[in-house]
Amino acid sequence: MNLAAIYHRTTDKYAYQLSDTELVINIETGYDVDHIYIHQGDPYLAGIMGGREEWKGKREEIYYKKREKEHIWWTTTLFPEYKRCKYYFEIISGEERVFLFEDGFYTEEEMHRPGKVLSYFIYPWMNPVDTFRTPDWVNETVWYQIFPERFCNGDKSNDNPGTKPWKCEEIKGYCDYYGGDLQGIIDRFNHIKNLGITGIYLTPVFEADSNHKYNTANYKKVDPHFGTNEKLRELVNLAHKNGIRVMLDAVFNHTGTDISMWQDILTNGEMSKYKDWYMINDWPVDKKCDTKDGRFYSFAFFEQMPKLNTNNPEVREYLKDIVRFWMMEFDIDGLRFDVGNEISHRLLQELRVMTKSIKPDFYLLGEIWHDATPWLLGSEYDAVMNYPLSTAISNYWIYPEWDSIEFEYGVNRSFTMYMQQANDVMFNLLDSHDTNRLIDKVKDEDVFYQQLAVLYTMPGSPCIYYGTEIVMPGGFDPDCRRCMPWDEIDAGKFDTEIEEMKKLINLRKTYKAARSRNFHFPNSIDDKRTVEYIKLCDEGNISIILNCGDETIEIPPEISCKHVIYSRKYEAGKLQAKGILISIL
Amino acid sequence: MNLAAIYHRTTDKYAYQLSDTELVINIETGYDVDHIYIHQGDPYLAGIMGGREEWKGKREEIYYKKREKEHIWWTTTLFPEYKRCKYYFEIISGEERVFLFEDGFYTEEEMHRPGKVLSYFIYPWMNPVDTFRTPDWVNETVWYQIFPERFCNGDKSNDNPGTKPWKCEEIKGYCDYYGGDLQGIIDRFNHIKNLGITGIYLTPVFEADSNHKYNTANYKKVDPHFGTNEKLRELVNLAHKNGIRVMLDAVFNHTGTDISMWQDILTNGEMSKYKDWYMINDWPVDKKCDTKDGRFYSFAFFEQMPKLNTNNPEVREYLKDIVRFWMMEFDIDGLRFDVGNEISHRLLQELRVMTKSIKPDFYLLGEIWHDATPWLLGSEYDAVMNYPLSTAISNYWIYPEWDSIEFEYGVNRSFTMYMQQANDVMFNLLDSHDTNRLIDKVKDEDVFYQQLAVLYTMPGSPCIYYGTEIVMPGGFDPDCRRCMPWDEIDAGKFDTEIEEMKKLINLRKTYKAARSRNFHFPNSIDDKRTVEYIKLCDEGNISIILNCGDETIEIPPEISCKHVIYSRKYEAGKLQAKGILISIL
Repeated sequence: MNLAAIYHRTTDKYAYQLSDTELVINIETGYDVDHIYIHQGDPYLAGIMGGREEWKGKREEIYYKKREKEHIWWTTTLFPEYKRCKYYFEIISGEERVFLFEDGFYTEEEMHRPGKVLSYFIYPWMNPVDTFRTPDWVNETVWYQIFPERFCNGDKSNDNPGTKPWKCEEIKGYCDYYGGDLQGIIDRFNHIKNLGITGIYLTPVFEADSNHKYNTANYKKVDPHFGTNEKLRELVNLAHKNGIRVMLDAVFNHTGTDISMWQDILTNGEMSKYKDWYMINDWPVDKKCDTKDGRFYSFAFFEQMPKLNTNNPEVREYLKDIVRFWMMEFDIDGLRFDVGNEISHRLLQELRVMTKSIKPDFYLLGEIWHDATPWLLGSEYDAVMNYPLSTAISNYWIYPEWDSIEFEYGVNRSFTMYMQQANDVMFNLLDSHDTNRLIDKVKDEDVFYQQLAVLYTMPGSPCIYYGTEIVMPGGFDPDCRRCMPWDEIDAGKFDTEIEEMKKLINLRKTYKAARSRNFHFPNSIDDKRTVEYIKLCDEGNISIILNCGDETIEIPPEISCKHVIYSRKYEAGKLQAKGILISIL
Repeated sequence: MNLAAIYHRTTDKYAYQLSDTELVINIETGYDVDHIYIHQGDPYLAGIMGGREEWKGKREEIYYKKREKEHIWWTTTLFPEYKRCKYYFEIISGEERVFLFEDGFYTEEEMHRPGKVLSYFIYPWMNPVDTFRTPDWVNETVWYQIFPERFCNGDKSNDNPGTKPWKCEEIKGYCDYYGGDLQGIIDRFNHIKNLGITGIYLTPVFEADSNHKYNTANYKKVDPHFGTNEKLRELVNLAHKNGIRVMLDAVFNHTGTDISMWQDILTNGEMSKYKDWYMINDWPVDKKCDTKDGRFYSFAFFEQMPKLNTNNPEVREYLKDIVRFWMMEFDIDGLRFDVGNEISHRLLQELRVMTKSIKPDFYLLGEIWHDATPWLLGSEYDAVMNYPLSTAISNYWIYPEWDSIEFEYGVNRSFTMYMQQANDVMFNLLDSHDTNRLIDKVKDEDVFYQQLAVLYTMPGSPCIYYGTEIVMPGGFDPDCRRCMPWDEIDAGKFDTEIEEMKKLINLRKTYKAARSRNFHFPNSIDDKRTVEYIKLCDEGNISIILNCGDETIEIPPEISCKHVIYSRKYEAGKLQAKGILISIL
């Protein structure tokens, strides 16, 4: 048996409270393992610890499993009667049988050696206050990300001097203004609503001397070129009246240089009362071209984005006050934390306690591109931007020689990274203002819709970037931030694309299975480039099939006879190359 | 290559801040791996993320490794210039070479496929407020655990009615009183001091109707049979004057039944204002023989120990107030949390913030017998009672057929479970009031001293249980709680044993290497039952050799010529069966 491939710990995703009564246990093994049994029960049924007790657990086979590239992922859910659990595993590979305890593998004979005190796995107590709870509404939500400066110019009177004419082609300048604003979003609200969107995520809207506004000058004042605080409240109210949630962007990792604290530092140097609000290593603070000399820390090496010192309790109080203000003033539903991996854990822990006490279902989303386990243990974020899922999806098209099992591996990896309650609200996306646009990545409209079909049938909470509904092109920043071509949209040029998007959104909203956390890969179609998975839920299951190869494939009658709820390039049991078939099972 | 055996994550022990500048990276592989290189550097040196940047790290070989049963544990320390780090691994086994990213293994060709965005490992920012800091003094401390009711009766006037005559033989009764008290500890303070002890850990001393006092009746009043609050303050002052720290036992998982809150519940039932202070499922609360019917939750199934609801903020405030009182009133140096794995994480997080703000080097120790990773991430305990190390040590004698490499595996496992700063202050013990005594486990005085020699040369903070210095016998509870035989001690009956203990304690205190976190196993003696390890530090290294076989072994001249600092059954290059040799290298 490949013992070195077997992995289980009583931490994070391997053993956790899914709710106050459900205890999830996961264990990874190599592909040589045939059966796993868990022996589990209350730790004290045989008396208290010390070494003398003769404890025996109840033996139960673990049936559920997922396939990952190098491992089988086995999963079971226990319901400990007295809130606590002691367990060990019995693992069988062919004729071999070993027992896994916390400190390693034992034979049956070794387990019973006189004097031996066994190191059982222990989940000591399921305290409700420690259950990781995420907001229910997020899994139900279909998001639309807006980069306000490029969405719609609703109020020309607040345009920045030097604003360029609205331009729907390639954008090359990092510093150009086109005049988009909050009034523009209000004006085009019906477009968003008609798509079926139920959540709007706005990149920053607070005062900042840039088109992206990630260099804040004033956290409590909407940027005058975007509108006013009243205008933001009007937008949130309009959204709420239409059952749409609103999430803002919290840029707390750094400020701009024209914010009062930084200005005070430039004026007063080491005498400034804000001396420890940033991370300054050399005084006085000089202006140069970047921060690679380390004289102060900044976002990346941008000297116009000095890094806030969230280690300093005063800074944490300042930022908590801002969040409280935003929640009270605008009644927002969530925050996406920019560079959410660099601000201190301490700040995030304090923010969670504070925000959830004001609004228990407030959504805390971190911008984290990598494995975010330390932030998703229940005391910081609810979820992160799910770039690992984006990567898993796009990989399959980047490596055309890969078998579809690689798609299965990638998706399984994405949804075995975290606890299920985080998976339920994970912010799934295929592109954003920080990447090139989806169509630029895939270069093919059929593949574009195949990947969107995956997005809308994954666990979590899907988000499209504004313009996706019209297959907007755009390379890397700044070209991924083009202006919405309203004239063409109004003229009906993108009606087909918008209808396609509506269908997918509607599918997501109509079928609970599309949103569900449960799925499996039946592998019933024998074709190495056909992706096939089933989403499961108590209201009925759906089947998703993508033909990612170059040949038409035959759909087996047990699926082709079913009710089709979304398809492309499909007819009468035949799914053409790059086609999609989603049916009710 | 055994890819399934390779494990690394950017969480807990695998990637962590050892200090504000040191970033430790650990990776596990199978034994087939020959070389590992880390490619690491600042994430932003090639620009910001998004997929277009061409980032290259600095390639460095990882040299340090430890052998575990199924894995090699590779370790390196990085010093990120700008506090952040991006990395991936290059892993070589014979002719095979793979690159490990967060989402799996890639070949060099796959890494450079057009459109591919690589999922690097990221340690985003080393915030000082998130560095796990443990108190420096703990590693320097040699502990002595006292069960006060059995240590010494210094004041007969406060004896419980029915106190039995002081009895130094086997104890069979769970409920007997023998009259030990705080005055007794003060009277025998010189005994403790002369041993060389620098830390005293007292099991509970607050009012409770039992000899062990784990069923508290009043958290703010020393048990009258043990003395008064003034007497406890006198003891702490005496200890502090002599450079000895004092740690008390915090029994916060449950109370006794005669505490005012529980009495209020018995009187007022569901109308009690303490209704939610416990975990009561059925009203009114009946008296039966245990709590297996689940009518309320308790410690184990003891109905005289109802479980406090540390999910309730009122209860958390109550317990924080008690800790504050103890710190202020008695000036204690640390707390050992009884059943420290069942109280809520939330309480522990709050307690850490509070205690460290009062006394930054306060020691927070959890009674956790199993892998305590979730509690040792920096925001809860400093350390736990190191039962995994006790098990690793005792295993080697329980399985006499094991090769000494199994000892190496066990010790290596114990010190790769947590971050180094936790290892430095881990509370190492071979027995306690909760187990049978060491001599009862090993049944042999030579093995007894071999295991103690290991205890005193391990990283962490060693503790002996009162009576160990006289090789006190005793089976499981209650027999492990015998009375100290002061008449015999005073008559000199145990002078030899006490001298032996002093030598070991003195060794621990004299040689920094004995306390150091660094060690390795040279395997220079070719004997399967000889344990051999070297402790390293900047002040000089020491070698520890234990002959655990049945034959005399020859000590190689490069060791036998060195200065011996402790030995048993050793003479002129020959170490007899069950002998010990500790030398300066």
